Amino acid sequence: MSIIYSIDLLGTMVFAISGAMAANRKHIDIFGAAFTGFVTAIGGGSLRDVFLNLRPVWVDDGNYLIAILTGVTISILANKYLDRLARTLSFFDAIGIGFFCIVGVQKSLSNEASAIAAIILGMFSAVMGGVIRDTLMNETPLIFRKEIYATACLSGAILYIVLGLFEVDSTVNAFLSAAIIFFIRLVAVKFKLSLPVIGG
Amino acid sequence: MSIIYSIDLLGTMVFAISGAMAANRKHIDIFGAAFTGFVTAIGGGSLRDVFLNLRPVWVDDGNYLIAILTGVTISILANKYLDRLARTLSFFDAIGIGFFCIVGVQKSLSNEASAIAAIILGMFSAVMGGVIRDTLMNETPLIFRKEIYATACLSGAILYIVLGLFEVDSTVNAFLSAAIIFFIRLVAVKFKLSLPVIGG
Amino acid sequence: MSIIYSIDLLGTMVFAISGAMAANRKHIDIFGAAFTGFVTAIGGGSLRDVFLNLRPVWVDDGNYLIAILTGVTISILANKYLDRLARTLSFFDAIGIGFFCIVGVQKSLSNEASAIAAIILGMFSAVMGGVIRDTLMNETPLIFRKEIYATACLSGAILYIVLGLFEVDSTVNAFLSAAIIFFIRLVAVKFKLSLPVIGG
Repeated sequence: MSIIYSIDLLGTMVFAISGAMAANRKHIDIFGAAFTGFVTAIGGGSLRDVFLNLRPVWVDDGNYLIAILTGVTISILANKYLDRLARTLSFFDAIGIGFFCIVGVQKSLSNEASAIAAIILGMFSAVMGGVIRDTLMNETPLIFRKEIYATACLSGAILYIVLGLFEVDSTVNAFLSAAIIFFIRLVAVKFKLSLPVIGG
Repeated sequence: MSIIYSIDLLGTMVFAISGAMAANRKHIDIFGAAFTGFVTAIGGGSLRDVFLNLRPVWVDDGNYLIAILTGVTISILANKYLDRLARTLSFFDAIGIGFFCIVGVQKSLSNEASAIAAIILGMFSAVMGGVIRDTLMNETPLIFRKEIYATACLSGAILYIVLGLFEVDSTVNAFLSAAIIFFIRLVAVKFKLSLPVIGG
Repeated sequence: MSIIYSIDLLGTMVFAISGAMAANRKHIDIFGAAFTGFVTAIGGGSLRDVFLNLRPVWVDDGNYLIAILTGVTISILANKYLDRLARTLSFFDAIGIGFFCIVGVQKSLSNEASAIAAIILGMFSAVMGGVIRDTLMNETPLIFRKEIYATACLSGAILYIVLGLFEVDSTVNAFLSAAIIFFIRLVAVKFKLSLPVIGG
């Protein structure tokens, strides 16, 4: 569990960086950048927890807030290098969404959500922070624009449920399913794959 | 209760169609359309449930998710005919908001919300899905632009509370109040009625 | 407690006025103005309560809804004078955010949130109503544009926690911390202070 927890904190930090960077690009002040980093990092998981009728994890565990502050600080200090680091960040981002998604599925199942709801809540955990970030920035949410993003989460979440039916060990299952999300995401970015548009 | 449940599922499906159609019109990909259909369908009811400190119904009952998937699939398969079906859909939409609203009032009252809060939560159930849809699509929410929409809900919700004070049977009351919402909505659309603008 | 409660109701009313005014400026109809007033007034506190896994206070206490209706009515009746009253309103607004913030910190602490989460939830109570209002109005949220607004809340919330460690009486502490928020806000408006922009 300790590895998953560390990855969850790392993912939170990466999401905070991506939120703060989005704000910096819009020339929003330091506080606004921190605020945007914060809601990007906690948005998805908080929504999942609220839908499960739980308190979001950061309300009780200060480590998440420290991870976010670290991420925001990094985005401020390293602002001029972040463009050059874009590739590295998108790598960590892909790892982050993979784990956020699978941790979300696990938490939903262990709180007795139905399997299909767990898939959706897992996906929400991974993508809703970004949706809220983009809505705040007054932009069309990225998941509507960008190569296979949420679909990667969907695939990984379904895989986790299916492997669970075959009683695969849950830690192995988590790493495998998160890896699939990561892999689909990277391939999609590499080859600029996208889904068909209806009536387009 | 079984009739109300069926109507609730049908309303969920119609809302999913309206959300997915909005996304299709913006040339968003299949996944984005499904996502938009989903949040449109569950947005209002989930907000109500969260405010009542309950788990949204779809977290435990997979039928709602099946209704949404059906709605999204219809919007994809029938995309080129949906414009011709607009009148039919707006008919079902009016039925949907009527029942969503009254079911919301009932659920709020049976969870010990105050009468005035129940009216607001009923209205939220019916309109907030659309508000979230429009916000995601980066448009001014429809309830700010369109003929008597939420006001119809308000009237029906108040009627339900008043008839309840006179101890009208709750099922009769529900159908009567939902019918009023439906009727006001249709008349407003027919005659393009709208509310006055302050300082306009 | 009665003074805090009265101020909380007054703050709710002022927030409802600010929301309804924003809608009026966009020539949205009466209902839309009331709706916007409502979500502006309850948005921040409701989000805080949901994150604390509590029912928002207005679901059980009708006085908040009456305060909001009063605010909306004032904004309609006094619409043409509200521009001249802008200075007075911004004075009350600054009082409102100060108390909303500190009441939010108190409520979070008494519901066993961590100190750092309480600071954030206090700030959320004060600013998220406005963020939701601006998002609905399709504008860049004010907290991203305007002089030291949320930062004032942050300072007051931290002060409240620090004074609490020194066991200052909680009512004295609340008034002192809210006063600091009020003071920082007024000075920032007066001198048009703003925070630095990263990479600007």
